[in-house]
Amino acid sequence: MNQVIELIKADVKKEKPAVESLGFGKHFTDYMFVMDYNDEDGWHHPRITPYAPLVLEPSAMVLHYGQAVFEGLKAYRAKDGRVLLFRPEKNVARLNMSCARLSIPQIDEDVVLDAIKQLVELEKDWIPNEEGTSLYIRPFIIATESSLGVHPAHEYKLMIILSPVGSYYGDQLKPVRIYVEDEYVRAVPGGVGFTKTAGNYAASLKAQEKAEQMGYDQVLWLDGVERKYIEEVGSMNIFFKINGEVVTPKLNGSILGGVTRDSVIQLLQYWNVPVREVRISIDEIYEAYQKGQLEEVFGTGTAAVISPVGELGWKDIIMELPNAEDPDTIAKRLYDALTGIQLGKTEDPLNWTLEIK
Amino acid sequence: MNQVIELIKADVKKEKPAVESLGFGKHFTDYMFVMDYNDEDGWHHPRITPYAPLVLEPSAMVLHYGQAVFEGLKAYRAKDGRVLLFRPEKNVARLNMSCARLSIPQIDEDVVLDAIKQLVELEKDWIPNEEGTSLYIRPFIIATESSLGVHPAHEYKLMIILSPVGSYYGDQLKPVRIYVEDEYVRAVPGGVGFTKTAGNYAASLKAQEKAEQMGYDQVLWLDGVERKYIEEVGSMNIFFKINGEVVTPKLNGSILGGVTRDSVIQLLQYWNVPVREVRISIDEIYEAYQKGQLEEVFGTGTAAVISPVGELGWKDIIMELPNAEDPDTIAKRLYDALTGIQLGKTEDPLNWTLEIK
Ligand SMILES: Cc1ncc(COP(=O)(O)O)c(C=O)c1O
Ligand SMILES: Cc1ncc(COP(=O)(O)O)c(C=O)c1O
Repeated sequence: MNQVIELIKADVKKEKPAVESLGFGKHFTDYMFVMDYNDEDGWHHPRITPYAPLVLEPSAMVLHYGQAVFEGLKAYRAKDGRVLLFRPEKNVARLNMSCARLSIPQIDEDVVLDAIKQLVELEKDWIPNEEGTSLYIRPFIIATESSLGVHPAHEYKLMIILSPVGSYYGDQLKPVRIYVEDEYVRAVPGGVGFTKTAGNYAASLKAQEKAEQMGYDQVLWLDGVERKYIEEVGSMNIFFKINGEVVTPKLNGSILGGVTRDSVIQLLQYWNVPVREVRISIDEIYEAYQKGQLEEVFGTGTAAVISPVGELGWKDIIMELPNAEDPDTIAKRLYDALTGIQLGKTEDPLNWTLEIK
Repeated sequence: MNQVIELIKADVKKEKPAVESLGFGKHFTDYMFVMDYNDEDGWHHPRITPYAPLVLEPSAMVLHYGQAVFEGLKAYRAKDGRVLLFRPEKNVARLNMSCARLSIPQIDEDVVLDAIKQLVELEKDWIPNEEGTSLYIRPFIIATESSLGVHPAHEYKLMIILSPVGSYYGDQLKPVRIYVEDEYVRAVPGGVGFTKTAGNYAASLKAQEKAEQMGYDQVLWLDGVERKYIEEVGSMNIFFKINGEVVTPKLNGSILGGVTRDSVIQLLQYWNVPVREVRISIDEIYEAYQKGQLEEVFGTGTAAVISPVGELGWKDIIMELPNAEDPDTIAKRLYDALTGIQLGKTEDPLNWTLEIK
């Protein structure tokens, strides 16, 4: 079933960047994975080739009609030197779900998983060692057909590129300040909000800029229909601890179903901490805050794993979450558990890591 | 004020395609326009160069986060040989409006208008002569910066490519069959529906496929909030003639404000035909249909100018518009007037054409 992945060797290797200068998604490794699609051959010619620029027709459909989906996951270097992936099959499955909605032909998930493994294995020297660092893996699919007609393309490229990264938001578990956006809308049921497609991110930039101008780190999106139900943060899902119970917005067609979100829910259940997927409005959050019952707010995502929210701004209201830096919050416990599993420091009770060897 | 546009000559010229094989956006001319942006120099180095593939980093932001906007307009060959553009300043202004929403730096509209004129002048031999054909002009801007961080890019390219085209929907004034989509949503207020950004089109493909499978040509979108107000068609705005009055959905933040739509409204006003921009639901349309008051339905867009709708499908209901092929409809009168102006056959009372010389 698995196609053989051809390896085209690189003549020269790049110098690896110093860990302090890593940033996020700025440096790329020596190799990338590429696979092509056309209607006749389906997905074909999987190959690992030297990292190099892409040559695209100016009329390549991705540049005009945005048929593009992507994924983001990480390879971690364990203390004992092992290389670990965290639930990569979830990302590959989500990629296919994004493809289905964006009229992109389905991929063979085994082939793509295998491609990730082989590429990371080949590039494992690029995985940085320091706390909070990792090798970010970016699979993506773009429509390459040359045509200005609006229709699903007949030619695509799937690529996987790797980037050694520091931590996305600066220091780990540094509380973030979030602004509740009530003017711009990210997604709506019937749309593409539940997929990782390029256009969702373009559409979010304006609100993100506005939040930054107001001194916030990220945006909390409300639903686009009633403009009051909590959806998610820029590139994180969101959780609230209210009166001892953890809640998070239920997946409704406009929220991206994060792998970290799913892992957090499973871990809490495993620990017997009450957790529920709910439909919850910003008014309810504010009410809980006023009653002193809003105990924690945190975001979840591959980039920063868990981000405690220190401040939630909504119109003129500022909700301060003073315990965001406490050592015995649920957020901290989740962060330690998840990073412990990801880095192979602790047990992996739910069997989430995949060792690459 | 205007920057000088450098011309880099092409060594070889392509053979021009036969008119029967034109299609839409499949063939491109010998030259294209390119201009770059970076934070230091702003938009700079406007140039006309041989049409050639683009070289992009695999991490170019447009491929991941969809920061891309575009325009579409046409150059027409008049019977007397003159080359005419139709309200090109409207497209350039709309491009800037799209840029503003997508956090792309503003362009100098005079420079881009000048670029269109110079490029079309240079390529005027590519404008086909036959009825219904034209030279399609596609300006577009893409984020070229290499980065996987989600933020507005710091580097862009603006390009203009030209494609000799036949008519988009086959025969002119052939009635189209439209399906009222009630599952998928295109756009919502607070989103990017009023802009020509790539992601809007990617998000629309699934519904378009579904409509085609049901034997329809295009989709009629309903609003994403109440799921009942009429928005627009795949790549056209929509008009209804009800009981002697012409109505079209009012621009509400989720509908693209078409240049053809605006021209139709102005022409009707000029003719003293009653026309109104309204908020109108599909139920109201159906009610008018049942009362025998739905006299005409037609789409408006650069591609086909005016497309009479012969059938409107909504759930299990089929609304037949039998007079779509009549010679004395408003649709036909508008089509003749607009194409007459565009092709320099008739007077241009509202001063819409710009001759290139
Ligand atoms: C819009 C959005 N929501 C949520 C997430 C979190 O998803 P995950 O936990 O899979 O990284 C991401 C990041 O990938 C995202 O882009
Ligand atoms: C979504 C959408 N609506 C409407 C239109 C019609 O606009 P215009 O008349 O400017 O071509 C287009 C086409 O450009 C479009 O893409």
